[in-house]
Amino acid sequence: MTKTLEFFFDFTSPYAYLASTQVEAVAERTGATLRYRPFLLGAVFKATGNSPPLMVPAKGLHMLKDLGRWAEHYGLPPFALPSPFPFRSLEANRLALVAIEAGKGKEFVARTYRAGFVEHAELSDRAVLARLATEVGLNAEEALAKIEQPSVKDALRANTEEAVARGSFGAPTFFVGDELFVGNDRLHFVERALREG
Amino acid sequence: MTKTLEFFFDFTSPYAYLASTQVEAVAERTGATLRYRPFLLGAVFKATGNSPPLMVPAKGLHMLKDLGRWAEHYGLPPFALPSPFPFRSLEANRLALVAIEAGKGKEFVARTYRAGFVEHAELSDRAVLARLATEVGLNAEEALAKIEQPSVKDALRANTEEAVARGSFGAPTFFVGDELFVGNDRLHFVERALREG
Repeated sequence: MTKTLEFFFDFTSPYAYLASTQVEAVAERTGATLRYRPFLLGAVFKATGNSPPLMVPAKGLHMLKDLGRWAEHYGLPPFALPSPFPFRSLEANRLALVAIEAGKGKEFVARTYRAGFVEHAELSDRAVLARLATEVGLNAEEALAKIEQPSVKDALRANTEEAVARGSFGAPTFFVGDELFVGNDRLHFVERALREG
Repeated sequence: MTKTLEFFFDFTSPYAYLASTQVEAVAERTGATLRYRPFLLGAVFKATGNSPPLMVPAKGLHMLKDLGRWAEHYGLPPFALPSPFPFRSLEANRLALVAIEAGKGKEFVARTYRAGFVEHAELSDRAVLARLATEVGLNAEEALAKIEQPSVKDALRANTEEAVARGSFGAPTFFVGDELFVGNDRLHFVERALREG
């Protein structure tokens, strides 16, 4: 029976960016079905009482080093934090839902994370989002109109509430069935869970 | 040139327990000199504004699962959190300094973590500490007298202040030269740093 790997992400999360570069390979190696599920990290923090690492200065400094180490480890371009950071990712996350619906989830997620964390494009800018939508083969005008629809807004909120209800407190969040894994640094456990009977 | 791996730990930290079961092998594989450095995790949290994972309920629940996964991954006995948790580890940490001074650091750290996290012995109990000291070949009465000496108390405080000054915000903390690594889950980066020129 094919297992499903659910990948909850927010475009403003650098650790979810790192994980986004690995999840396709993890799914391929394990024969799992990958499900992209955008959510709102800020709302997750608020709901759970968690806070971003940057709130503790020493943790923030270590995080910057750590992100660089992971980028190197994964063979990605050198990591530098975009500015401003954190940035507004609400519209980008909604657009991911539209892209997924249109069968372009994989392409849009990869393209948008690269834009945000490698090219340092402003993902809060609708012109940037329109360009990214076009690049992955979406009709940008239609796609950006859709992110204003209540159904898309509600779906993003529902993903967020569901993740919190299932135990999430940060990003990236993974589920293999009911098993929860939080953090890019837990992908090896995710992969093990996907391999297990 | 031989590199040194500094391992900052507090006996009340379950992630430092996990790391303690691996650091000798990491040092052996890389030819590094391992330096055991007890510190006071509570004081580190206070100094940096960081807080224990259990303060966020969802994080605490995930942590319990996660500790079990790591224990399994490392081939350790099934993990269960001791009760009470966190427990008072001040005297055990001081005793580690005495054991290190007497050339029994490795033995005492391994024995005491096993007592705390596998056998669920009360490390806040001096009778337990006396037994552990004896088991690793120390004169328990002398060793327990030493933990009352200002020099030992000061040395533990100095380790803590040094770790914070060098960027630590949690346990376990590792240094390879000036490079800081926080977390059992960063041991693979520690090992890479020890291997590098």
